[in-house]
Amino acid sequence: MDSEGSQTQHPYVPQDLHLPGFVPGVISESHIVGVYVFASVIVISLTWIGSGRVVTKLSRSDRLLMCWWAFTGVTHIIIEGYFVFSPGFFKDKTACYLSEVWKEYSKGDSRYAARDSGIIAVEGITAVLEGPLSLLTVYAIATRASYSYILQIAISLGQLYGTAVYYITSILEGDNFAMSPYYYYSYYVFANSFWVWIPTLIVIRGWKKICAAFQVQVQKRSKKR
Amino acid sequence: MDSEGSQTQHPYVPQDLHLPGFVPGVISESHIVGVYVFASVIVISLTWIGSGRVVTKLSRSDRLLMCWWAFTGVTHIIIEGYFVFSPGFFKDKTACYLSEVWKEYSKGDSRYAARDSGIIAVEGITAVLEGPLSLLTVYAIATRASYSYILQIAISLGQLYGTAVYYITSILEGDNFAMSPYYYYSYYVFANSFWVWIPTLIVIRGWKKICAAFQVQVQKRSKKR
Repeated sequence: MDSEGSQTQHPYVPQDLHLPGFVPGVISESHIVGVYVFASVIVISLTWIGSGRVVTKLSRSDRLLMCWWAFTGVTHIIIEGYFVFSPGFFKDKTACYLSEVWKEYSKGDSRYAARDSGIIAVEGITAVLEGPLSLLTVYAIATRASYSYILQIAISLGQLYGTAVYYITSILEGDNFAMSPYYYYSYYVFANSFWVWIPTLIVIRGWKKICAAFQVQVQKRSKKR
Repeated sequence: MDSEGSQTQHPYVPQDLHLPGFVPGVISESHIVGVYVFASVIVISLTWIGSGRVVTKLSRSDRLLMCWWAFTGVTHIIIEGYFVFSPGFFKDKTACYLSEVWKEYSKGDSRYAARDSGIIAVEGITAVLEGPLSLLTVYAIATRASYSYILQIAISLGQLYGTAVYYITSILEGDNFAMSPYYYYSYYVFANSFWVWIPTLIVIRGWKKICAAFQVQVQKRSKKR
């Protein structure tokens, strides 16, 4: 592929990225994306069915939110957790699905293969803190816990902060980590966009609910007087 | 200082950090810290006095929180804002106070002088978003706004997330950016610690208040039935 010897042969941009022992991915893109979509549909379907059997009847939006939190929680823990704790995924020879995912995603952002410290920091916080807390949120919504909205806002703000750091650091470093415009827009822009607009909507919704709860509290106090 | 020519002579660690045109700081450490402490005491005192004159009587803890938000807001906007938008502060020859602050702080963390992209991303979010929102919080507490607690939690979580990225990226890159243990512990550890324990306490307090507000709401609903 290039003249620098077999050790650094990889498809990623920038081409001078040093990845000794790189082993090319063998699973096709459609296979990788297909398995992820299929597994996600199962997680979402099971959550939807389960949420319909909760004793206290839940609203449609609460049930949809439970599906989101189950999906994002599982993604954070399994997919992103694997990345954080597998520094040598690009050397994997076993065609393990999770290392193939990150070999594929690195085509849209080579900083993953390069183990950029900003990426690891953000993914570490996401996988270790936000992942388990997302699953806790599924339980919190089902039980109508008093901390449900504030927990949803806390995780969503974390997702938004992480995505902001993700994009800002890339722009500051030249925004040139994708193999082609196709990978740039499909992986780097489109795939991440779900963790921008969904958390934004959840923060707005929770914010309104919390403000309304305080207005109720104030009304109650003024009635007492 | 070293044999690599005048362009890269600087006191920071690592010594091979390239800072062409570096101009050493001329204001002493005690002067820099003294001015910051003095200015902060004035901001805090004025906020404390002003908060005592608000029409609706505020609790002592609310008044203390207003002092914190005024102090941290001014620090984010002026001190950190200057850093974000002054890429060449280490070349400044005018002994401008704010560039001297960052020449001094870089002794505890040279990534500031090196303009590490993770640092700029975190400081950018802090200065541009969290700074103005901190000042809005002073107003929100004074007017007992229904969004007061959720706003305080949102900014505090942002400060905690930023500090986490700050320390994690440093550890991943070898944690070797301070000139000496003195600067490591006084600047890098001690100065930043305020943005760990104070936001943590604010999140815990706000979290409890929000949960209590939802419990009031639930009680009100069950009475209606």
